[in-house]
Amino acid sequence: MSDTLLLILDLAGIAVFAATGALVGVRKELDLFGVMVLALITGLGGGVLRDVLIGAVPPAALDDWRYLVVPAATAVLVFYFHPTIGRMEKQIMVLDAIGLSLFCVTGAVKADDAGLNILAASVLGLLTGVGGGMMRDVAAGRVPVIFRGELYATPAFAGALMASVIAHENYASAWYGLAAAVCLVWRLAALARGWTAPIAPGADRG
Amino acid sequence: MSDTLLLILDLAGIAVFAATGALVGVRKELDLFGVMVLALITGLGGGVLRDVLIGAVPPAALDDWRYLVVPAATAVLVFYFHPTIGRMEKQIMVLDAIGLSLFCVTGAVKADDAGLNILAASVLGLLTGVGGGMMRDVAAGRVPVIFRGELYATPAFAGALMASVIAHENYASAWYGLAAAVCLVWRLAALARGWTAPIAPGADRG
Amino acid sequence: MSDTLLLILDLAGIAVFAATGALVGVRKELDLFGVMVLALITGLGGGVLRDVLIGAVPPAALDDWRYLVVPAATAVLVFYFHPTIGRMEKQIMVLDAIGLSLFCVTGAVKADDAGLNILAASVLGLLTGVGGGMMRDVAAGRVPVIFRGELYATPAFAGALMASVIAHENYASAWYGLAAAVCLVWRLAALARGWTAPIAPGADRG
Repeated sequence: MSDTLLLILDLAGIAVFAATGALVGVRKELDLFGVMVLALITGLGGGVLRDVLIGAVPPAALDDWRYLVVPAATAVLVFYFHPTIGRMEKQIMVLDAIGLSLFCVTGAVKADDAGLNILAASVLGLLTGVGGGMMRDVAAGRVPVIFRGELYATPAFAGALMASVIAHENYASAWYGLAAAVCLVWRLAALARGWTAPIAPGADRG
Repeated sequence: MSDTLLLILDLAGIAVFAATGALVGVRKELDLFGVMVLALITGLGGGVLRDVLIGAVPPAALDDWRYLVVPAATAVLVFYFHPTIGRMEKQIMVLDAIGLSLFCVTGAVKADDAGLNILAASVLGLLTGVGGGMMRDVAAGRVPVIFRGELYATPAFAGALMASVIAHENYASAWYGLAAAVCLVWRLAALARGWTAPIAPGADRG
Repeated sequence: MSDTLLLILDLAGIAVFAATGALVGVRKELDLFGVMVLALITGLGGGVLRDVLIGAVPPAALDDWRYLVVPAATAVLVFYFHPTIGRMEKQIMVLDAIGLSLFCVTGAVKADDAGLNILAASVLGLLTGVGGGMMRDVAAGRVPVIFRGELYATPAFAGALMASVIAHENYASAWYGLAAAVCLVWRLAALARGWTAPIAPGADRG
């Protein structure tokens, strides 16, 4: 994938994740800086985790001012122009799905660039995708989306695995769009239709 | 300690910790991939934390495929063959004690290999032992075992301190068995008999 | 800033943060080692996070025995000599404010020394200040102070930004006192008077 495309997708993922963090912060009635901190943690958490794990420190988030300005500006926009609060949970889930699908792809690609094998790059793509949202939810005292029994980790891992293979085999960049789309469509369909994956035999849902 | 023995103990600790994470995930009625993510976090969290802190990145967990396959396979086994749910809490605690005693030893040894002093190596052994379980509990919205007022940190630090001294003085590998056994027996006895350590004067248990 | 002054301020911040962690641990009726672990996490968490992010591993906390002895000794002192439990919450908040103001300054200075730009150094100063307390609260199952809707992140960012500018422009060390004082006085005034910052329009406090 070209560096420019990777950067744009990364910043887009950061912006939508930051927006989910900012919305949670607005709903918790935090002040502007509190909203910004939650937006920064959510937008940058997954990528920073990935960068630390592949030894790319200081992480891009601290080395390139755009990585800080994008989530901060997103937080300000959400703070002042957020729509009425009522149906926010649904918007958070949709933005979260978009961020997830972008990050599982960019995370896997960066991990592959760092020389990790396909399995490790897929796991790191998954972690990049779920890391920021998990930090957001843990910090805000919510149960992380990934552990709510919805179909969440499976689409993310599917997207990350596809992206790892594409990166490893040097396929055309356009295929990354397919990887992200698979994750996004799968996750949104699960949200819309209340799909849940099979749970362990004997562990019946209450 | 020989590298092979260290690897085997490390993988054994990862497997039992992964099993505790998988059991928590099964009880929370997560799907297979959700269970895998919780198993990976629990099994690899402590070691990854240690590797990041001593600058050994990418951590072994991402560099060696066995570190990913062991917890993933453990998660699949637990998912499909877990026993009936009822008495799971007790099993989780026993597996957790085994993982704790293995990790406080291997963590301290790896920290000593990295050149840390005995005190720092002991603290890192303790963190390696409690890190994965703490991430599991925080991610799953449970109070971490270490902060439930049971005898938990003390046995782990005792084992880690013994292992640090053994590693620093280059004693025979067999002694590591004693360090792990002290931690395990102490922790299991505390579990079985409901031992609690002295709390601060004036902070009476309610 | 001279290295000696930086070290002293860093250790002072570690001591007061460790004391807040130890007080939370005493109130949760943990044993001595559990109290120590919570004190270590709280006292060292922010600085370790900073060191990992700027690639300074092993972090100072594991390289220099004073960084381990200071929070451990603080935990022992709090454990045995803590005052009566009743009004502890207030004391925790005041100590936390002192630690916050020291860490947002030292964190920003160390980040500037590592070559980060002013914006990144300010964010890292903020994270150093809020990181340990956030880990303490998350680990202990409390809502992090920073997300309770009080004026918390704003004073910390103000102090970190001032310190970043002072460090970047090589102003006299005495000015760091002003940066820390601005954060401390602002935070204490907010505590004493129940100040809250403006929240997002439309997100009325319930």
